[in-house]
Amino acid sequence: MVETSRALAPTTKVFVETIVNSVCTVVNAPAVLHEPTFDANCWAPVKDCLDSGWVSSVGSYVDGFEQRLSAFTGVPQAIAVVNGTAALHLAYRIVGVKAGDEVIVPSLTFVATANAVAYLGAIPHFVDCEPSSIGIDANAMRQYLSDISEIRQGRLFNCVTGRRIAAVVVTHVFGHSPDLNAILSVCNEFNLPLIEDAAGAIGSFYKGQHAGTVGHVGVLSFNGNKVITTGGGGALLTRDPHLAARAKHLSTTAKIPHKWEYCHDEIGYNYRLPNLNAALGCAQLDTLDDLLLRKRSLANAYVAAFTNIEGVGVLTEPSDSQSNYWLNALVLAPQKATERDAVLAGLNDAGVMSRPIWHPLNALPVFSHCPSMQTPVAKDLYNRVINVPSSPSLAKLCP
Amino acid sequence: MVETSRALAPTTKVFVETIVNSVCTVVNAPAVLHEPTFDANCWAPVKDCLDSGWVSSVGSYVDGFEQRLSAFTGVPQAIAVVNGTAALHLAYRIVGVKAGDEVIVPSLTFVATANAVAYLGAIPHFVDCEPSSIGIDANAMRQYLSDISEIRQGRLFNCVTGRRIAAVVVTHVFGHSPDLNAILSVCNEFNLPLIEDAAGAIGSFYKGQHAGTVGHVGVLSFNGNKVITTGGGGALLTRDPHLAARAKHLSTTAKIPHKWEYCHDEIGYNYRLPNLNAALGCAQLDTLDDLLLRKRSLANAYVAAFTNIEGVGVLTEPSDSQSNYWLNALVLAPQKATERDAVLAGLNDAGVMSRPIWHPLNALPVFSHCPSMQTPVAKDLYNRVINVPSSPSLAKLCP
Repeated sequence: MVETSRALAPTTKVFVETIVNSVCTVVNAPAVLHEPTFDANCWAPVKDCLDSGWVSSVGSYVDGFEQRLSAFTGVPQAIAVVNGTAALHLAYRIVGVKAGDEVIVPSLTFVATANAVAYLGAIPHFVDCEPSSIGIDANAMRQYLSDISEIRQGRLFNCVTGRRIAAVVVTHVFGHSPDLNAILSVCNEFNLPLIEDAAGAIGSFYKGQHAGTVGHVGVLSFNGNKVITTGGGGALLTRDPHLAARAKHLSTTAKIPHKWEYCHDEIGYNYRLPNLNAALGCAQLDTLDDLLLRKRSLANAYVAAFTNIEGVGVLTEPSDSQSNYWLNALVLAPQKATERDAVLAGLNDAGVMSRPIWHPLNALPVFSHCPSMQTPVAKDLYNRVINVPSSPSLAKLCP
Repeated sequence: MVETSRALAPTTKVFVETIVNSVCTVVNAPAVLHEPTFDANCWAPVKDCLDSGWVSSVGSYVDGFEQRLSAFTGVPQAIAVVNGTAALHLAYRIVGVKAGDEVIVPSLTFVATANAVAYLGAIPHFVDCEPSSIGIDANAMRQYLSDISEIRQGRLFNCVTGRRIAAVVVTHVFGHSPDLNAILSVCNEFNLPLIEDAAGAIGSFYKGQHAGTVGHVGVLSFNGNKVITTGGGGALLTRDPHLAARAKHLSTTAKIPHKWEYCHDEIGYNYRLPNLNAALGCAQLDTLDDLLLRKRSLANAYVAAFTNIEGVGVLTEPSDSQSNYWLNALVLAPQKATERDAVLAGLNDAGVMSRPIWHPLNALPVFSHCPSMQTPVAKDLYNRVINVPSSPSLAKLCP
């Protein structure tokens, strides 16, 4: 910290200290970015699962977890899988993405959103976002697709690369939903299925509909850094019984049901969530309402703490979104973008774990061969958005 | 059962009854094919993991599980991942299999061995097995590769398809090791790396070396049907520190270490084993020696029970293999091959869960486009090999 501080200009030093102090009025250092909350009630189902001997990919907790996810999110079926990345991979596959296709992916999202496109031999094609939700900018995407693509016999093609464009994926960034109606409208104009990467968005709603249930397929994650966790885990959400059946079939090695024969009719995966992890998931769902209250309380505390701080604000839910506030985010003013790394160093040195938003994927060398529209908003936000500690346990609720 | 029995010829009926009765002298019905064994001690590490809050893909149990796997198998490093299929996928990738390559795969193996080849856009190329281990027949593979391939500038090419042949994978079928020295010798002749699918073979040894540690990379599974389980889980084994580092990097989204930035330098995966599952794995490793004794005892009981039964034998470990006897297998005499389904029906109807060996993969429509040598031995064994209940808890050990 000493090294960093020495090098800072006086105004930067004051700015950093103000931010560190403001964050520390909300959370006590040290604080990690996001850790799960377990109460003593979580033991019982996990122990029961061990006692039953059914710890693997078939079991009553998997069924129960899926039923409860379905009830909570309001879709007829949820399919529990090993993690959010596996759910994305299946989602792309069941909507028909094939090797050599392109998938429209936001520039600002976790790398798994794009990686899972590549798993199918398909190519991510990056688009820009808008600042209120940090999700895809529907209008910019419409204009861009009008410029570079054309529909031939009902299928959309990229006129520049000649490849088919097969789907759009949107991310609910930090739990905030993008303008899904506007995005869905563009998808319909261009005959594209919509996948929702709602990995961090359990408990988030867009106009009353749960995140991940507006498009054709939605994806949740229960990784250890999410609002609820199964250790590792994820789920697909869909209203389409055909897609749900396809996802389940593909997640169980595409095995054809038979009393004893091992016949498989497609290239499938070993993607089912183990019962052991689902048992923890059931326990976590019991606490979800309380965790969501805590998350909102913490977000309100950040807003209050930063109300009168010049040069930095707090990202709040867009008007149509009821966010779970998975990760709280500070947004530096444009003139403060150059001070982002000093702020990050100051916060982390103070024991307050903080991170910038994801690196714009289209700027990573690994995706440099992929098509992309100009993404000035993503590039700008990358220099100004900082996630701060957001664990539900940090909320100081009234007793 | 009544329906099946009615239709049987008298000699078949007697044969089936003899087998059912013999199996039932070894195990009490009902008996599943393979279920895990948990003792009361397995709860402590799982509870400790929950209490620590570290349930996800980083944690002391993951490190401990890897260290203990490394010590048990005698390789410098083991990398724990979400399941055996993920381990296979990584194994193919780190030895250099690329889209459009072919990988030599045995006809008789679980479908994941071939699926994971396809995940990379590569093509399984099937070869035959030999009856003693049901593993790859080294001599037949040598002759076949001599006939259809040629080495150009150090790389092997299939002269028929024009594609590169990039690797060989062998499977330790039911825990029995194939003749690895002979297979490795063929691999060296043709400049091919050797991957060992030892998914079911923890505790199996080939000439004193643990299964999965003879070739370049080996793969273990801890699925619920294996000798020890983590719910879902797997591991890579390798003596090559470069390959180990690559596997670990790719299994953690290929993220470049940095205090806060999300930069990734390759298409990576979300494949690390959660700490919760590793905690169970540590508990299971404590019991492995005992489980292996029980497995061997059960196998001996099957051998004794079938010693004087005409028309059927028990598969025993090949001369160079010390098998964990993951799955016990009856082998019908050639003239009894037509009675396989009657035997399967009889056993399952009696509550003794039994299955044929895997369907030859090259005969499944999903792999019909893939190159294959003639596989008469695999085809023959498919009609004669039946797995019978093999859970360690079934062993009747002396007190």
